Amino acid sequence: MRPAVEPPDRVRDLLARMTVAEKIAQLQGIWVGVDEAGAVAPHQHDMAVEPVDFDAAVRHGIGQLTRAFGTRPVDPALGARAVARSQRKIMAANRFGIPAMVHEECLTGLTAWQATIFPSPLCWGATFDPDIIERVGAAIGGTMRSLGVHQGLAPVLDVVRDLRWGRVEETIGEDPFLVGTVGSAYVRGLESAGVVATLKHFVGYSSSRAGRNFGPVSIGSRELADVLLPPFEMALRAGARSVMNAYTDNDGIPVAADESLLTGRLRESYGFTGTVVADYFAVSFLQTLHGVVDTPAEAAGLALRAGIDVELPTVNCYGAPLLAAVDAGEVDLELIDRAVSRVLTQKWQLGLLDDDYSPEPVGPVDLDPQSSRTLALDLARQSIVLLHNKDTLPLAPGSRIAVVGPRADDPHAVMGCYSFPVHVGAHHPDVPLGISVPTVLDALRRDYDVTYALGCPVLGGDDADIAEAVEVARDADCCVVVLGDRTGMFGAGTSGEGCDVADLRLPGRQEELLEAVLGTGKPVVLVLLVGRPYEISRQVDRLAAIVCGFLPGEEGSTALADVLSGRVDPSGRLPVSFPRAGAGQPSTYLAPTLGRLTEVSSVDPTPLFPFGHGLSYAPVTWLDAECPPEWPTDGVCRLSVTLHNGNDVPATEVVQVYLHDPVAEVVRPVQQLIAYSRVTLPPGGTTRVDFTLHADLTCYTGLSGRRQVDPGAVELRIGRSSADISSTLSVNLTGSRRYVGFDRVLRPTQVAMPTA
Amino acid sequence: MRPAVEPPDRVRDLLARMTVAEKIAQLQGIWVGVDEAGAVAPHQHDMAVEPVDFDAAVRHGIGQLTRAFGTRPVDPALGARAVARSQRKIMAANRFGIPAMVHEECLTGLTAWQATIFPSPLCWGATFDPDIIERVGAAIGGTMRSLGVHQGLAPVLDVVRDLRWGRVEETIGEDPFLVGTVGSAYVRGLESAGVVATLKHFVGYSSSRAGRNFGPVSIGSRELADVLLPPFEMALRAGARSVMNAYTDNDGIPVAADESLLTGRLRESYGFTGTVVADYFAVSFLQTLHGVVDTPAEAAGLALRAGIDVELPTVNCYGAPLLAAVDAGEVDLELIDRAVSRVLTQKWQLGLLDDDYSPEPVGPVDLDPQSSRTLALDLARQSIVLLHNKDTLPLAPGSRIAVVGPRADDPHAVMGCYSFPVHVGAHHPDVPLGISVPTVLDALRRDYDVTYALGCPVLGGDDADIAEAVEVARDADCCVVVLGDRTGMFGAGTSGEGCDVADLRLPGRQEELLEAVLGTGKPVVLVLLVGRPYEISRQVDRLAAIVCGFLPGEEGSTALADVLSGRVDPSGRLPVSFPRAGAGQPSTYLAPTLGRLTEVSSVDPTPLFPFGHGLSYAPVTWLDAECPPEWPTDGVCRLSVTLHNGNDVPATEVVQVYLHDPVAEVVRPVQQLIAYSRVTLPPGGTTRVDFTLHADLTCYTGLSGRRQVDPGAVELRIGRSSADISSTLSVNLTGSRRYVGFDRVLRPTQVAMPTA
Repeated sequence: MRPAVEPPDRVRDLLARMTVAEKIAQLQGIWVGVDEAGAVAPHQHDMAVEPVDFDAAVRHGIGQLTRAFGTRPVDPALGARAVARSQRKIMAANRFGIPAMVHEECLTGLTAWQATIFPSPLCWGATFDPDIIERVGAAIGGTMRSLGVHQGLAPVLDVVRDLRWGRVEETIGEDPFLVGTVGSAYVRGLESAGVVATLKHFVGYSSSRAGRNFGPVSIGSRELADVLLPPFEMALRAGARSVMNAYTDNDGIPVAADESLLTGRLRESYGFTGTVVADYFAVSFLQTLHGVVDTPAEAAGLALRAGIDVELPTVNCYGAPLLAAVDAGEVDLELIDRAVSRVLTQKWQLGLLDDDYSPEPVGPVDLDPQSSRTLALDLARQSIVLLHNKDTLPLAPGSRIAVVGPRADDPHAVMGCYSFPVHVGAHHPDVPLGISVPTVLDALRRDYDVTYALGCPVLGGDDADIAEAVEVARDADCCVVVLGDRTGMFGAGTSGEGCDVADLRLPGRQEELLEAVLGTGKPVVLVLLVGRPYEISRQVDRLAAIVCGFLPGEEGSTALADVLSGRVDPSGRLPVSFPRAGAGQPSTYLAPTLGRLTEVSSVDPTPLFPFGHGLSYAPVTWLDAECPPEWPTDGVCRLSVTLHNGNDVPATEVVQVYLHDPVAEVVRPVQQLIAYSRVTLPPGGTTRVDFTLHADLTCYTGLSGRRQVDPGAVELRIGRSSADISSTLSVNLTGSRRYVGFDRVLRPTQVAMPTA
Repeated sequence: MRPAVEPPDRVRDLLARMTVAEKIAQLQGIWVGVDEAGAVAPHQHDMAVEPVDFDAAVRHGIGQLTRAFGTRPVDPALGARAVARSQRKIMAANRFGIPAMVHEECLTGLTAWQATIFPSPLCWGATFDPDIIERVGAAIGGTMRSLGVHQGLAPVLDVVRDLRWGRVEETIGEDPFLVGTVGSAYVRGLESAGVVATLKHFVGYSSSRAGRNFGPVSIGSRELADVLLPPFEMALRAGARSVMNAYTDNDGIPVAADESLLTGRLRESYGFTGTVVADYFAVSFLQTLHGVVDTPAEAAGLALRAGIDVELPTVNCYGAPLLAAVDAGEVDLELIDRAVSRVLTQKWQLGLLDDDYSPEPVGPVDLDPQSSRTLALDLARQSIVLLHNKDTLPLAPGSRIAVVGPRADDPHAVMGCYSFPVHVGAHHPDVPLGISVPTVLDALRRDYDVTYALGCPVLGGDDADIAEAVEVARDADCCVVVLGDRTGMFGAGTSGEGCDVADLRLPGRQEELLEAVLGTGKPVVLVLLVGRPYEISRQVDRLAAIVCGFLPGEEGSTALADVLSGRVDPSGRLPVSFPRAGAGQPSTYLAPTLGRLTEVSSVDPTPLFPFGHGLSYAPVTWLDAECPPEWPTDGVCRLSVTLHNGNDVPATEVVQVYLHDPVAEVVRPVQQLIAYSRVTLPPGGTTRVDFTLHADLTCYTGLSGRRQVDPGAVELRIGRSSADISSTLSVNLTGSRRYVGFDRVLRPTQVAMPTA
């Protein structure tokens, strides 16, 4: 356990001099927006309990300015100046001149107009490449700094448990080690730019009943400890300075009221010293939705005691109700001081309490510089997954190609629900993109003779349009069918926050369109632009090829065309399994024997395309894998696997290492990822990939509730995917059972060293 | 906590004299079958580790004879004599003359050839009538006694959590109070006949991931305590003397290895003194499927320590492996003695240790006497649910009726998967029924001019058959379409053990058949013979009526015809919700606000037909409901509601009382059933229904993990269904928080008293 960090003198001095009202103001947010004239005004959200007056709200200072850039298209430079003016107002209003922290969403890039739209987190997972994600985080952070934004509400570290959940697209995948390592890289990047990363949603959200947004979570403590918590632990060690609660209740206890999670786990076990901020309106929800308190004051008291330091987006409970509760002696002033101390310490760390602090933007504002665009393209290229290929891809030069489908010619098709044009789409459907976002059709036209038909929209559509698409396909050498999701918020889309589904059939009439085009007999290449996997098993055997892009961002279509044309070798690997038709949800690869057994149930959960799957145009040869038969007593086991690239082009492979534990004190998943390495081999090259695996990677939460490493044999399964294992090595751990602290686990090192 | 009952002197004397091998023999089962010649021989199951030799297996005695009547059609009288002969052999083989206990399945009646096939448990739930279920239990018990059977493996007390699960048809429904009260009635009946009732599956099975059989269960301790455990507690207090473990693991701990459940909960908290028997092969599964031990001996030691007293169906681990483990000092002899003492005490209670015990059958053997057939018909009549009726039912006398659909003319259509003809169907598909089981077609022909076409089988089928059904429908006044499940075991059916589904669309082409018949424009009455609810929302508005029978047994078709013709007023109420099309699973009515909210997710979980729903031909008028505004300090609140029957025929109503707790320490379901009463009113009659509700009924498991009753206001919602509330009364509980022991809760009394 790390010792709690003492607040700096400056903060202790402030705490000694502030009134209760001034302190409480630091625990509040105010939701604002920049209007067309460049003025900051309160954003009147319908869930705010009463209209907000800016001057009144900030009269004692304020903790947070919420999403000034997030609710309408704001000219970035104008917005930056407007925010600075607001800060001056806030600093002038309070006795101590304390500015607000400014926070924004930043999942797929800053959620602001004209900012780079990076690939969605499932793409990050698909790269199996933390390095590039760290660079993405740094680029996003730099953008935010240029606007005077201090905190970003990302990354999402929820581990996928049910593919029907609308927020699957916001996650990094279904494996906690992948989510944790890649998510940590994003955190390192964002924090390296001086922006506070906010881990969300702590914790349980992805396990909601039937995958419904906000649904209750019935979860055992072991699943919580071994699946959902590890990414948070890893990202905290990577330097994240803020955490946001999940809306859900776990086994009846809302996270916003759960002291054992927000204080016990976070502070006492993990040694976290940053801030815990409420997911929007979550403090109110304790009264209005969870029914665990009767009044806003009680909600405030409960959340504060549990460990919610700051109410967002705007003040419902942490204002007059909390003040009255303190005055009435119902809430201990020490709890206020605890939260304020954390908030002010963070402001102090960020320099906001410095005498020479200036809120004015420095330097020019460019939210989509060429460097970011190039990075977005690189990431997109690494993330595209070739799922299936019957010698059809790459498309031959000079082919006459029919492009059909609702995702072929819509720039929104490559964007996640937190990308600005989609995020504000419900209120501003006609917002100009402000940046260049080529479509798949645009990108393919650069290389091929292309005809196009819509076929059908994402939802709905009529027979005539499908018939037209069939005609277009008949006249071509090959048909590229681009299907997938319309992302949106709260039911406005087929994927995204609140856009949950009951089953995994392709939305609308898209499967029908696909069947119609398949009926032509022409080779059909299916391109998916999706926020989650869908059932494509009914068509897979008849498809010439399948390529998947998980909402790959502003340069995603370019990357797709690069892959389809063969300019880029596909190297993405699935961070989520593709289900078989007729398989129910939830069902991820992280299941024990009884969750995978096909003899005892008529529902076969075997995926169509397993976790980690992805093809290449230049497959490499897997040679020997080696490790000692006994795990060395210093805890460090060296595993190596040698690959050979027999192609005359460079080849990329993702080496995946899974752990199988044949006998344990509790039921364990059949296998789980414990290491991976993305390696690129030159033509004709041979590379040995070395892994340094600590024995702690074999740990699990045993009967005692503690993490333990057991003696005995484990299997290391090395392969191309969770279902395509090239070597299985048995390693014996000697000694006796050990318990593993939270500071030790899940830190493998991976080094790829060319040997020839 | 009840004190553990001391074993009788006879048992203590035996324990003092038995060798370890003789003791261990009492913890074993041997699976036998009666052959055509009337000889009992071991049943060689492919999961038994080695072939079983009867004489060798019983040389030290044996605990249990497994399912002598269950694996092929056995003439009952012949079988009874064969079992008696086996008992003589067993008694002669061991030094103390101890016979075996003989157990059988008995969920929908004894699972033996020619035994009464009673309605399935969902029908029991649909009656909301514990009294008739108690009589059914007594009738089944009497049958078993006549064959020399001592123990029945029923009832199933799993509370439905996911309708996709194949074993939904074996449950009583989705509400723990309904399952507990009705299940307890069955227990009282069976035990009143001197047969040991076996509660199963203790506990968690119904919450398996995606509803897959044996799937892992991730469940919180509060859901376990408040939803899944209460029916077991209630049925134990009703006198059940045996419990069977669930196959599943809960949060990684297999129940068969879970001392906290099998010993902590069952023995220490509930004071249970009977036997815990293993679900078939569950002890072996600890090694082979759960992977928590490495050898059969370790499996035996772990299960015995946890609290599994008897291994069933036949010995894999509790034989030589356990003996060797005891000899090696790896298993404490006290654990053996603990289990043997329970087994022998039960044999002693049953008279099996009496000097004058005789295994010979007494009296004639008739497994389907007229009294049982009448009872099966009465139960079926009470259980049929009229879901929807556009003034079409009852069918007019003299109507020309087309009957179509795969469930119209198959006697198996009314049987659950534990009904003998279905249960042995995989091995003996051509087994003669042995008893009369009319089909819906047979029953309707008694009243109407009927034409018939199959339309399609339950699965598969061709266009011509559907076309034929359309033709038949065109020529009639009205079309009765009989759709539903083919029950089976392990994938052989569409409902039943191992027959799970991925979604809730009607199996095969049945929805297509329904649409085709609807296309004729004739009034269409849908009759469902199903083991679970299905999606019928796409058709509901166009259907003239919908009637549901949950596998209503050998007289179920007669009961359906009685309802369709109006001879019997439908009075069944739904024990499980019917989902809306496009709603995901799991989704039962027992959900908190966030599990029902439609604003935050595009998936609407509102059911099409809610829990408790059911129509009548003679609806009654609901008059005033009354209770005091303050819950009386003696804990007993009298609630009354007055009903008036304005019809000129008798009317039956099920008065349902739901609890809504606006503010609690943890998130609670929006409402849950706490009392109900089935009442029949004479023509023109007025009845006051009085409920005596103890305050303990408002309890729930709070943050401390204990059951508590809180002060404050609760709402009592009285109505026709969970969604059709006629009165809402607020009652205030005074005083301070109380904790509630396991001996107090869930015992309402309900008295219907005619007042006019």
